[in-house]
Amino acid sequence: MGGRIWNTRETQRLQRLNKAAQALGNDLTGKVLPHHRTVDLLNTVLQPFDRVCLEGNNQKQADFLAKALVQVNPARVNNLHMLQSVLALPQHLDVFEQGIAKRLDFSFSGPQSARLAKLVSSGQLEVGAIHTYLELFGRYFIDLIPNVSLIAAHSADAQGNLYTGPNTEDTPAIVEATAFSGGIVIAQVNELVDTLPRIDVPADWVSFVVKAPKHHFIEPLFTRDPAQISEIQVLMAMMAIKGIYAPYQVQSLNHGIGFDTAAIELLLPTYGEELGLKGQICQHWALNPHPALIPAIEAGWVKSIHSFGSELGMENYIRARSDIFFTGPDGSMRSNRAFCQAAGHYACDLFIGSTLQIDLNGNSSTATLGRIAGFGGAPNMGSDARGRRHCSPAWLKAGEQARTGLGGARGTPRGQKLVVQMVETFREHMQPAFVETLDAWQLAEQAKMELPPIMIYGEDVTHILTEEGIANLLLCRTDEEREQAIRGVAGYTPVGLARDHRMVENLRDRGVIQRPSDLGIDPRQATRNLLAARSMRDLVRASDGLYSPPQRFRNW
Amino acid sequence: MGGRIWNTRETQRLQRLNKAAQALGNDLTGKVLPHHRTVDLLNTVLQPFDRVCLEGNNQKQADFLAKALVQVNPARVNNLHMLQSVLALPQHLDVFEQGIAKRLDFSFSGPQSARLAKLVSSGQLEVGAIHTYLELFGRYFIDLIPNVSLIAAHSADAQGNLYTGPNTEDTPAIVEATAFSGGIVIAQVNELVDTLPRIDVPADWVSFVVKAPKHHFIEPLFTRDPAQISEIQVLMAMMAIKGIYAPYQVQSLNHGIGFDTAAIELLLPTYGEELGLKGQICQHWALNPHPALIPAIEAGWVKSIHSFGSELGMENYIRARSDIFFTGPDGSMRSNRAFCQAAGHYACDLFIGSTLQIDLNGNSSTATLGRIAGFGGAPNMGSDARGRRHCSPAWLKAGEQARTGLGGARGTPRGQKLVVQMVETFREHMQPAFVETLDAWQLAEQAKMELPPIMIYGEDVTHILTEEGIANLLLCRTDEEREQAIRGVAGYTPVGLARDHRMVENLRDRGVIQRPSDLGIDPRQATRNLLAARSMRDLVRASDGLYSPPQRFRNW
Repeated sequence: MGGRIWNTRETQRLQRLNKAAQALGNDLTGKVLPHHRTVDLLNTVLQPFDRVCLEGNNQKQADFLAKALVQVNPARVNNLHMLQSVLALPQHLDVFEQGIAKRLDFSFSGPQSARLAKLVSSGQLEVGAIHTYLELFGRYFIDLIPNVSLIAAHSADAQGNLYTGPNTEDTPAIVEATAFSGGIVIAQVNELVDTLPRIDVPADWVSFVVKAPKHHFIEPLFTRDPAQISEIQVLMAMMAIKGIYAPYQVQSLNHGIGFDTAAIELLLPTYGEELGLKGQICQHWALNPHPALIPAIEAGWVKSIHSFGSELGMENYIRARSDIFFTGPDGSMRSNRAFCQAAGHYACDLFIGSTLQIDLNGNSSTATLGRIAGFGGAPNMGSDARGRRHCSPAWLKAGEQARTGLGGARGTPRGQKLVVQMVETFREHMQPAFVETLDAWQLAEQAKMELPPIMIYGEDVTHILTEEGIANLLLCRTDEEREQAIRGVAGYTPVGLARDHRMVENLRDRGVIQRPSDLGIDPRQATRNLLAARSMRDLVRASDGLYSPPQRFRNW
Repeated sequence: MGGRIWNTRETQRLQRLNKAAQALGNDLTGKVLPHHRTVDLLNTVLQPFDRVCLEGNNQKQADFLAKALVQVNPARVNNLHMLQSVLALPQHLDVFEQGIAKRLDFSFSGPQSARLAKLVSSGQLEVGAIHTYLELFGRYFIDLIPNVSLIAAHSADAQGNLYTGPNTEDTPAIVEATAFSGGIVIAQVNELVDTLPRIDVPADWVSFVVKAPKHHFIEPLFTRDPAQISEIQVLMAMMAIKGIYAPYQVQSLNHGIGFDTAAIELLLPTYGEELGLKGQICQHWALNPHPALIPAIEAGWVKSIHSFGSELGMENYIRARSDIFFTGPDGSMRSNRAFCQAAGHYACDLFIGSTLQIDLNGNSSTATLGRIAGFGGAPNMGSDARGRRHCSPAWLKAGEQARTGLGGARGTPRGQKLVVQMVETFREHMQPAFVETLDAWQLAEQAKMELPPIMIYGEDVTHILTEEGIANLLLCRTDEEREQAIRGVAGYTPVGLARDHRMVENLRDRGVIQRPSDLGIDPRQATRNLLAARSMRDLVRASDGLYSPPQRFRNW
């Protein structure tokens, strides 16, 4: 093609850098800029229709840059296409209201999901798609390549090298996609220092550094106060350990956020020990440094933990337990969401999480009417990793249960990931967790989605665990069996009450449904005394004073 | 646990570094060591039973370090557990014969697969498992954490910062897992320089650097001489474009290695143009810089390419086409196997590859008797990405075809990845590609594997394309239909000859099987004249002289 220009992206990068150098003059020292010029920088560097990746996940937030972005001149900077893991801050939507941004591709919008739905229906915001994190990162290299990225790090040196600290999270994926495609990387940092503890992102990959007036926000999302764990949750945790972890010999796993899984973590060194399971299960983890895991770590249950991000207050504990956590020679943790999601998908035997609704096919969703929420990492962790080829007892047993008696392609032996949904039959406000039809269907119509926003598909769910029992969907051979297995653990919800009693008893005889008594679990034993820690203070004590909970979790 | 020590990994790291400093004395300048001391370094740093990650994929090889490893003292260094993407060099197995290494976890062993099988049966080598690349990387963070990594980069500076050059490949995954778990990272480099073109790996993450006497080996694995493309391959490529890419509107995709897919690449600017498909298909790619893609790039078909690794001879072309390829500000490419595999899994509509054997369920494998080969990236790219949530026309259409008429969990609407197996009915030496039973079954018994080594499962395959036609397995509703659809494109192989003619014709009427004539393709048009380049020289010309093929591909 005579005359076609093939380096527009690199030329644009240089033009943007030059324009910034001119506009900022002496305020720019190398790559470092005083924070009061940030809006000027963005006004200069951004162009209409740019794809802009704004860092922020469920923990750290490039909040100073998010606030600066709201202040750019919409006459100059508009129609931005925002790419972000999580919509968390009000500013993340303000940019749409103010006509600065138009289109959005994202993974999770929990705190902003209702406002997001309103902006979509008013036409101020177009949703490209909802993704799981690793999927969104993948698209950064394929068809959603960022032009500009706004990221957060802990500190920078004068050259622009970055230290992310323990919350590395999404930064490496975002920066790599941007820096190597002619993009501009702008980092907010808490501190400028002479020498970094270590370099997490080389200065070559960074265009500008701004020291923000305040440290970037981090949410202690994975902290659960053991005092709030109920005895029903203790009972369910006992069932998880004895009814799933033990028989499948689950060695590598991920726990989602919540009190249900916190209860399991706190039962390992007590109930798990009693069952003689130490060393037999739960040695390798893909999860953030959950404080509730401290007693199990101290009791020697845990061999390794790789993390998506860190957790506030766990810094000194992690530093003192570097055999367990991934840490640098400097002693602080290195997290990495992309690698941890890949590991969660491919190297873990089990994912256990919770949901708001489950239907009769086992499809589950946290989507509710009037909210566009997304699912973060759950679709990736909670789907069968069909590319997996290495064997483990858990994976082989699940695969065998799923395929016994099947012929053809579906009967060809392969392993399967354990995907467990752990829910009480009623959630808060007495809303049933089991429903005939997911709200997701109506939401899809409302928001004109191509498919209902299902978090985990029934095809991928292997077990549903409630206070009434465990339904092993791997053993169901027909849609009807699956439906009755689900009804059979759905308690007093309408779905549960409409069960076919004879069929449910038959499923119980076959071990498809297991009640606590079938597992030899005495519900009277399910008391809070079984928890290895019953308060935040117990966790601090278990950590030998190394864990330092954020203020709001302290009541002493 | 009173008295438990929690920093053994970090302590060991420091001990290893100290021992090395003592043993190497003045030969060690910072982190840089003269190459003649490499064996001494390994003898000092390695300990029995260490997990050692030796870098090498299908392209670049840490070959100098591999040769040094064979020379360590087995009385001192033994029982190593080797972790590697690819077994490619003789030294990769010599370490087992010499009692230095004992256990192996890997992904692909093409060139060494027969010798590997022998070492396994003689008991000199224990295979942990075969993985797909991203799965192996995932385990580096979970239960296969390396103690020592031996890696390859292009150059280093005096501090130990590394420039990997265009062949970054597996390096970031290996180094991150090792450097942040108390491990030792040893890099061989081609050059020591004052200033690197860019930093790919920060010095903080690197323990030792050795300038190897020769540049590390790189295999031009993705170069296919268009002169060797047959007219049958042209016909099959026409069917792929008109029968699959066009109706599904495939926008993002991966092509495997081989002449079949090279033919497709070379037909885009000719046949694809004739069909008016430019801009409609094939704009975003996850693949190495295939020289056969040059004419399509030049004709404006391609918007972006992200790569696992680079390809020899393509350096200047890539540099001059930085809008298409991921390149650094220095102009050279940045590849990254982990991100490209994630993108291939989650952000691509289609994977098309080849195989040696396909059975009646659509299961395929390249495993053959007496060889333990592994499958590299194919299981990851060639499996349905069940965590994917973003929609594209291709993904939605495939999902709809697969689910129409199904009830229950299997009938819940979701998209599906297109996974195409493209094979001639007979491969070399007139071996049929279609078989009643895969060799994989017998191999599993021979090598005592838990499961037969299947590369791509029939459950995940959507289309089989041969010179006889396309079988769309998405449209098959029973095992019997699937079997006949496969027989119906299996030509004159015994499997093909045993077809039920009436059922095959019925499948053809329903569009499950499509012959060239059903697609409006005239086989007489399928000549080599349709190829946009018919020789290596044509490719060089198409690149405006920027592509510089390796010597062995030049016959002028």
